[in-house]
Amino acid sequence: MKYVIIGGVAGGMSAATRLRRLNEEAEIIVLERGPYVSFANCGLPYFIGGVIKERSKLLVQTAEKLYQRFRLDVRTKSEVTRIDREQKKVLIDHNGKSYEETYDVLILSTGARPMRPPIEGIDQADHLFTLRDVPDAEHIVQYLQQHKVDHAVIIGAGFIGIEMAENLAEHGLKVTIVEREHQVLPPLDPEMAIVVEAELKKHGIEVLKGKTVTGFDENGAILVLDDGMRKKTDLTLLSVGVVPESSLAEQAGLALGIRRSISVNDHLQTSDSNIYAIGDAIEVAQTVGGRPAVIPLASPANRQGRMVADILSGMKRSYKGTLGTSIVKAFDLSAAVTGLSEKLLQRFNIPYEALHTSPPDHASYYPGSAQMTLKLLFDPESGKVLGAQAVGKKGVDKTIDVLATAIHGQMTVNDLTELELAYAPPFNSAKAPVNLIGYASENLLDGNVQNVQWNEVDQLVQQGEMLIDVRTEQEYGNGTIQGAVNIPLDDLRERLSEIPKNRDLIVTCQVGLRGYLAARILAQNGYSVKNLDGGYKLYSSVFPEIVK
Amino acid sequence: MKYVIIGGVAGGMSAATRLRRLNEEAEIIVLERGPYVSFANCGLPYFIGGVIKERSKLLVQTAEKLYQRFRLDVRTKSEVTRIDREQKKVLIDHNGKSYEETYDVLILSTGARPMRPPIEGIDQADHLFTLRDVPDAEHIVQYLQQHKVDHAVIIGAGFIGIEMAENLAEHGLKVTIVEREHQVLPPLDPEMAIVVEAELKKHGIEVLKGKTVTGFDENGAILVLDDGMRKKTDLTLLSVGVVPESSLAEQAGLALGIRRSISVNDHLQTSDSNIYAIGDAIEVAQTVGGRPAVIPLASPANRQGRMVADILSGMKRSYKGTLGTSIVKAFDLSAAVTGLSEKLLQRFNIPYEALHTSPPDHASYYPGSAQMTLKLLFDPESGKVLGAQAVGKKGVDKTIDVLATAIHGQMTVNDLTELELAYAPPFNSAKAPVNLIGYASENLLDGNVQNVQWNEVDQLVQQGEMLIDVRTEQEYGNGTIQGAVNIPLDDLRERLSEIPKNRDLIVTCQVGLRGYLAARILAQNGYSVKNLDGGYKLYSSVFPEIVK
Repeated sequence: MKYVIIGGVAGGMSAATRLRRLNEEAEIIVLERGPYVSFANCGLPYFIGGVIKERSKLLVQTAEKLYQRFRLDVRTKSEVTRIDREQKKVLIDHNGKSYEETYDVLILSTGARPMRPPIEGIDQADHLFTLRDVPDAEHIVQYLQQHKVDHAVIIGAGFIGIEMAENLAEHGLKVTIVEREHQVLPPLDPEMAIVVEAELKKHGIEVLKGKTVTGFDENGAILVLDDGMRKKTDLTLLSVGVVPESSLAEQAGLALGIRRSISVNDHLQTSDSNIYAIGDAIEVAQTVGGRPAVIPLASPANRQGRMVADILSGMKRSYKGTLGTSIVKAFDLSAAVTGLSEKLLQRFNIPYEALHTSPPDHASYYPGSAQMTLKLLFDPESGKVLGAQAVGKKGVDKTIDVLATAIHGQMTVNDLTELELAYAPPFNSAKAPVNLIGYASENLLDGNVQNVQWNEVDQLVQQGEMLIDVRTEQEYGNGTIQGAVNIPLDDLRERLSEIPKNRDLIVTCQVGLRGYLAARILAQNGYSVKNLDGGYKLYSSVFPEIVK
Repeated sequence: MKYVIIGGVAGGMSAATRLRRLNEEAEIIVLERGPYVSFANCGLPYFIGGVIKERSKLLVQTAEKLYQRFRLDVRTKSEVTRIDREQKKVLIDHNGKSYEETYDVLILSTGARPMRPPIEGIDQADHLFTLRDVPDAEHIVQYLQQHKVDHAVIIGAGFIGIEMAENLAEHGLKVTIVEREHQVLPPLDPEMAIVVEAELKKHGIEVLKGKTVTGFDENGAILVLDDGMRKKTDLTLLSVGVVPESSLAEQAGLALGIRRSISVNDHLQTSDSNIYAIGDAIEVAQTVGGRPAVIPLASPANRQGRMVADILSGMKRSYKGTLGTSIVKAFDLSAAVTGLSEKLLQRFNIPYEALHTSPPDHASYYPGSAQMTLKLLFDPESGKVLGAQAVGKKGVDKTIDVLATAIHGQMTVNDLTELELAYAPPFNSAKAPVNLIGYASENLLDGNVQNVQWNEVDQLVQQGEMLIDVRTEQEYGNGTIQGAVNIPLDDLRERLSEIPKNRDLIVTCQVGLRGYLAARILAQNGYSVKNLDGGYKLYSSVFPEIVK
């Protein structure tokens, strides 16, 4: 059996090595367009920032080592220019010379390439970079070494944009981020992303939201924004997302999916039964909701690579979808997401309930604990977990990993209350963040409390609902939401007479916990009451300017 | 409705506050024998060690605050001395005065007390301490302040023993641990615990395994061990486990379970339908395998406390069992376990497969990554995860939490391969430790490889199997397993002729990965071959003295 794999990073190399482990006899050829295979592209921003000091650390494997250990025929700088499906062969360009290679099975692991919008002057722009592979990173490092670079502009505040902002800032550069959406980190919901934005600003990053670059002036030395602003830049990184590298597949007439991705069935097989495809180039089903999506992430790519080898070796496997779990470090914070965001749930018209909590990562009586902001999205009928997001200094990765596992297992918020996680004071609380948000969700499901969201409260107050801040007088004095009256929780039972029975009430506290207790007291005393989810902490982080 | 709760820590207080949240009208009385309620007993070792500086941090709540916020009638120093089931009342002793209190529903959250074996001289022993509550900790702190204490002996190397060893050593004491079993941390399997033992020794702790204290001489200044050793001690901590505090329940004629624990049904109801019981005092079913057990841990106690309040308020809940997830910090290491250990699986005659890996906690090309030792136990037929253990510097809590969640969801090792966890270089690898051990387990399940364990290899070699160390010459030269010949993996295909076809082979490498690759090559070349699970790293950590 002769396997030809196009693309020698992540998925492609996972497929190749697994094929060999399952079959000593197969002929396995890996054709990689670039000079390196199996490199650590997720490490590139940290190589540029100097956190990873040696380039060699990024080069996980070489063609020689892969031959020695796996008898793989790895050919770098070998670009496939055409697929001949009828003859089952590919045309390869190597250093300007063309040759053919036949295949029994072809695996496309062609990846994705940085999006390059048709902005005026983009093709004449100097010092404009994208970051996708080792040569890209080398170009940036070289440029930084050889030029006086004071100010960098990053276009796009996604994961790579944020990582590059941190790494360039740590390098001593003044950094500006321009993001088209009205928030950084578009995969997150805005009230979560704003915590990251504050962290970026705290570290001197300028964040321009809701703006697009409409032109590169003076050979790219000046960026023109849609609001007319002109921004000087010594180095510009274009990180506005990637597009599936599907031109070969398209030329070959293979069926394409959304965003020109390569369409595959659950055996990762394209519309040609001899051609399989994996990684960033393919369309997948989202684990939650099942909608088609393109999700360019390393972890699914690796998984698909291994799986396609299993399938080709006759094992019973099927690809069940991609959850989209991801995480980014932003200075002292980390921000992570799994499943669907509230934005996507709305876009897909999937019913959901949202909940925010602010638990400490570990027992607050043990030194070093840090509060995170945690958001859970779940089905309002079944309680099934649909998505989660977390931002904080510690424990974010752990919390999201547990929730990603819960989603994989189709668990409900009731399951979250029952999870028994590793507890000792340095590591967690006896009631872990995941348990606590499970409890809070269960209370919503069971109708023990009704919530109101950070973006709903102002309108409800304007409509005449009474807002009661149940924190202490001192907390209230330090800032509250406009229109709120103060009745501290511990005085509430004695001061019920101050609260008119005929008004709908909203209670709020710092993070939502005391508000919940107040809501329970009020509801049992005959009031119609809702609790402000996430409390003053969440509200004031989104609207810092309008809290009094 | 009048609820009386005996015991005001963890489960008891969770029940009380939840009952109030669900019901403003109920009368709720909490009777606590000690001077404090709702204290953080898991923090006690760190209070003694000075990591937690203020005692007030341990006192999460006071009776006054609990009245103010929850209208709980909390009575400290109030010991229930008798339950009168017929009259539905309890007899309470408060400062030497007795009185009665009736109940509609009684909740027993009586906890557990330190085991105190009948060792000769134990009742005359001075400076002998146990650690269960705040006064216990205060006694130890006071003793340390008022006496010259050079040498402490800790009897029992369980979680509290290890935590106290660390904290007393950090305090400047010379510490000896005496443990009856032939390993520290009996909840772990021995080859995992030995990593912790090495860490203890590295930090100057003397560890005496397989020894028991048979006498306290000279008023406890000398400990006599079963091998005749006499050990001077200035401070002795007895931490050999706890027993359910069930004497009240027993007196009242309630049904008891194993180890004199209080027997409850899945509604946490005792044999008296008006009496419920929760926490360390009760018998639970183990999540894995379903056998009855006593599992004194904070997390299940809190969960049971909340659940009993839900059940009493008419909600549909049932207690499904305890997983036994736990973790301990031991200097720079952490060690955690979830589900059943190999020892317990053997004891219960449950079929299992065991697997060890040594993954880095995050991408090794990003600074600061650390290798952990991870062990997975799973059903050899279905692949269902039965238990896991991890020891390492980083990522242990996260890895075990994900696996605990997987066990809750009845997931298999195939599910582990599909988990999509949060990956960026600072946080994880694209193939997370959980994915990797899933892959390795899948290979076992699928028959792609056969393993041999660290405690089986010597005998097999003696029986004539050929042991091949496939690491590099240099690694081999630095130490290998007795009897191993060296054929580096990358030379294996060329040197097959050196390997006799008629001998059964065992291959080994550093951690098991190259061994697996070698086993695949050899098996496909017609050899009968097994891979040494965990490789030289695991073997040599268990048998440091017999590697050459």
